[in-house]
Amino acid sequence: MYKVDLNCDMGESFGLYTQGNDEEMMKYITSANIACGFHAGDPHVMRKTIELAKAHSVGIGVHPGFPDLLGFGRRDMNCTPQEVKDYVTYQMGALREFANLYDVKIQHCKPHGALFMKAMEDKQVARAILEAIHDVNPDMIVFSLNNSEFMEEAIKMGIPVAKEAYSDREHTENGSIVLTRTGTAITDYNAMADRVVRMVKENKVITHDGKDTRIEAETICIHGDTPGAPELAKAIVHALTENNIEIVPIKQII
Amino acid sequence: MYKVDLNCDMGESFGLYTQGNDEEMMKYITSANIACGFHAGDPHVMRKTIELAKAHSVGIGVHPGFPDLLGFGRRDMNCTPQEVKDYVTYQMGALREFANLYDVKIQHCKPHGALFMKAMEDKQVARAILEAIHDVNPDMIVFSLNNSEFMEEAIKMGIPVAKEAYSDREHTENGSIVLTRTGTAITDYNAMADRVVRMVKENKVITHDGKDTRIEAETICIHGDTPGAPELAKAIVHALTENNIEIVPIKQII
Amino acid sequence: MYKVDLNCDMGESFGLYTQGNDEEMMKYITSANIACGFHAGDPHVMRKTIELAKAHSVGIGVHPGFPDLLGFGRRDMNCTPQEVKDYVTYQMGALREFANLYDVKIQHCKPHGALFMKAMEDKQVARAILEAIHDVNPDMIVFSLNNSEFMEEAIKMGIPVAKEAYSDREHTENGSIVLTRTGTAITDYNAMADRVVRMVKENKVITHDGKDTRIEAETICIHGDTPGAPELAKAIVHALTENNIEIVPIKQII
Amino acid sequence: MYKVDLNCDMGESFGLYTQGNDEEMMKYITSANIACGFHAGDPHVMRKTIELAKAHSVGIGVHPGFPDLLGFGRRDMNCTPQEVKDYVTYQMGALREFANLYDVKIQHCKPHGALFMKAMEDKQVARAILEAIHDVNPDMIVFSLNNSEFMEEAIKMGIPVAKEAYSDREHTENGSIVLTRTGTAITDYNAMADRVVRMVKENKVITHDGKDTRIEAETICIHGDTPGAPELAKAIVHALTENNIEIVPIKQII
Repeated sequence: MYKVDLNCDMGESFGLYTQGNDEEMMKYITSANIACGFHAGDPHVMRKTIELAKAHSVGIGVHPGFPDLLGFGRRDMNCTPQEVKDYVTYQMGALREFANLYDVKIQHCKPHGALFMKAMEDKQVARAILEAIHDVNPDMIVFSLNNSEFMEEAIKMGIPVAKEAYSDREHTENGSIVLTRTGTAITDYNAMADRVVRMVKENKVITHDGKDTRIEAETICIHGDTPGAPELAKAIVHALTENNIEIVPIKQII
Repeated sequence: MYKVDLNCDMGESFGLYTQGNDEEMMKYITSANIACGFHAGDPHVMRKTIELAKAHSVGIGVHPGFPDLLGFGRRDMNCTPQEVKDYVTYQMGALREFANLYDVKIQHCKPHGALFMKAMEDKQVARAILEAIHDVNPDMIVFSLNNSEFMEEAIKMGIPVAKEAYSDREHTENGSIVLTRTGTAITDYNAMADRVVRMVKENKVITHDGKDTRIEAETICIHGDTPGAPELAKAIVHALTENNIEIVPIKQII
Repeated sequence: MYKVDLNCDMGESFGLYTQGNDEEMMKYITSANIACGFHAGDPHVMRKTIELAKAHSVGIGVHPGFPDLLGFGRRDMNCTPQEVKDYVTYQMGALREFANLYDVKIQHCKPHGALFMKAMEDKQVARAILEAIHDVNPDMIVFSLNNSEFMEEAIKMGIPVAKEAYSDREHTENGSIVLTRTGTAITDYNAMADRVVRMVKENKVITHDGKDTRIEAETICIHGDTPGAPELAKAIVHALTENNIEIVPIKQII
Repeated sequence: MYKVDLNCDMGESFGLYTQGNDEEMMKYITSANIACGFHAGDPHVMRKTIELAKAHSVGIGVHPGFPDLLGFGRRDMNCTPQEVKDYVTYQMGALREFANLYDVKIQHCKPHGALFMKAMEDKQVARAILEAIHDVNPDMIVFSLNNSEFMEEAIKMGIPVAKEAYSDREHTENGSIVLTRTGTAITDYNAMADRVVRMVKENKVITHDGKDTRIEAETICIHGDTPGAPELAKAIVHALTENNIEIVPIKQII
């Protein structure tokens, strides 16, 4: 039987500012990528998000970003690999302490935004993140785009990798994604859900420029800050179930 | 034989800015209170400071502060107890991850600046900090002024307390300290060292207003950012040794 | 004929985070209090808010706060008067440069949150803010609660004061307000609008504890971040118009 | 007679952290580039630095940087031109208000660190900065490396440009500089002073790779954070005077 994990960025509110609809999204997903106060999130939000994830038995992931709250971690910063490693260690530790408070474990790491995209292409940055993880938590799973430097380095280091595809972004031929922030809002949830089904069952997706390419989708990302995200999540869950694809925690897949 | 621990605030540099002389001070002390990025310190500095403390076999302490880099954590902020608890959890976790990286443990907690002073007097803030510690690390030692709410609450909760006195601040009759930031620089190191000896051996100190009061001094604080701090530390170590007072890690005392 | 100014806090979004509904509120008000990046707001938001205020011929005000984005400027910070003065100068200058860009002037100053409340009661903080204003802009109007230190000091210094009352907060007997952040949401817009009418025409309001007290209401604050704020604004505008109270820029009143 | 302006980055302290020796350096220079709180500096420091510059009749310049205190503005950030423009407007306005307080004018703009280097090579970023300046202050002078996009765009827009060379950095063949932060400390002040004299009188400099290239040096930068900077400054002033080169405000040169 086919299996897939559903992940979503979570805990991206800050102080009085709210972002996304975590309470609603948590019902549909199996992995929560929790912001740690650098690009978004704050100590209070982190604690509440861990509490919420635990209540829904959702896997807890660290979602480290660049120290750029003003840019929501979406702007590349020319940090050294050592700086990146230290930033990841710091954010991961902060989250782990809240996890300890609720007697849960951090299951996975998915870097955020510009740090994620940089890790896919820059071997040194990829290694910096992976070393921060590996030195303390050799069993932690990392989420990665297909065919990336991040994936390759993780495999070399013996770190378990979950291959990720996107429900709400276009893909390139090698499995990367096209940033479409200014793009059109989500409209056709069913078409998107069908695309997810095809990625999981057939390992195939039509790229942004119309080619049919191979992709492995062990975990599917749904962006929680897109308006209509809960509806998209619902449509995906429905389509997966209809197609006998089981939605399970990522550790049952890899 | 008399014993005492020497503690110093450490890792208070930030980015390009340096503060204190950690390399020099680390030679004299047994407990390092390490800043965690809220009032001072950054991920890089935290890692280097843990590395340095380990190299000198100095006990590692978390030194959490208010989120006020601009004010160096020295300005009281009207945070709720829950906010304080979350801030302490966050900072402690960040530091613990670096400690994990170097296979060392966090030994103690000493809050910083305005948060420290508030915890001495405000039972709710005291409890917030202590709960953050106790929920995850029931054996961690806390540093506290004599006769404070912080000490009382810690005792109630079964958290080990190290009673602290100051080498470079004046004391009040109940063992609290007088903030003298704008005061005169340290000049007479020997007189200050002699005062430390008396606090440890006789449990006595002359207060800021000339009274002779009782004080327990299990750990002595030396401020690392005072110009001349290493000379003061050297004088204290010399006077303690001359007086057959052993300088030992705090866990051998309480 | 009776006249009143309507003011609203504006430009409190930050980076990707949005707060309030500035586009909608701007239609109803005559004075916009614009955040300047310390408690909320950022350079981009400031520019867009000035542009929006100009398009609606709404008076531009500086809305300086404590440097506490995490607490949205709602937590008292123990800053010195000189620190407060420097913070106000900085924020006012940043806003003024955007105003210069659009060829508009800053008309008024209303401090934000904890800084506002502190200025009402603490003469030194009141003077610090007023000096920052007066030294560079002797004609700028300040918004103040009735019977406050801020008002008294402003009068002494010859700074024009607009006396302010609140549409969506309870008042005390001397004209201060009761913070009701955790309170009930706005529900009865018409009752609130009627209360505004009475404050303007009769200079009377029922306090939070049921007394009928005197209040001067030259400008009425509507909080933009309350859900339903545009509906409240609409109800107020309607009630004022029905009662022949003209809604005019504050400089036509004082 | 030959003339040259001497500039130095100033006001880069932050809160309790001090950086550079502004009081000493101010004696030797004619232009102060004052940080504005994004990469360094804070409201208090800005005010004190303006006061100090005024006392020494030193020209006041805005020294805007990326919003990256942790990296001291030395890390490139992938900001949009509009973001850069808004950041410059904000920082310039904040500084201008302090200048107003002391009845002095902002004379020039020199961007800081990574923003400066980016403006030299990226036409869009160059224009963003120049538009922020030009829209409000058409007479402000900008400091620029020789043969840069920044210089070319400024000339097109009719903004006065001061061509800058460095006393303590190596130059490339086209007049750019080589970042040598990890390099050797300043040692031979006289050799460096002689190089400055040659740049001013002969418009010639030996590049980092040994070529003799043409350079225009209307203003010479001395980095204030280099240990020994005041000695270097003294040596430069001495050598210039010996060679009958007058040290004058930049506006007397261009």
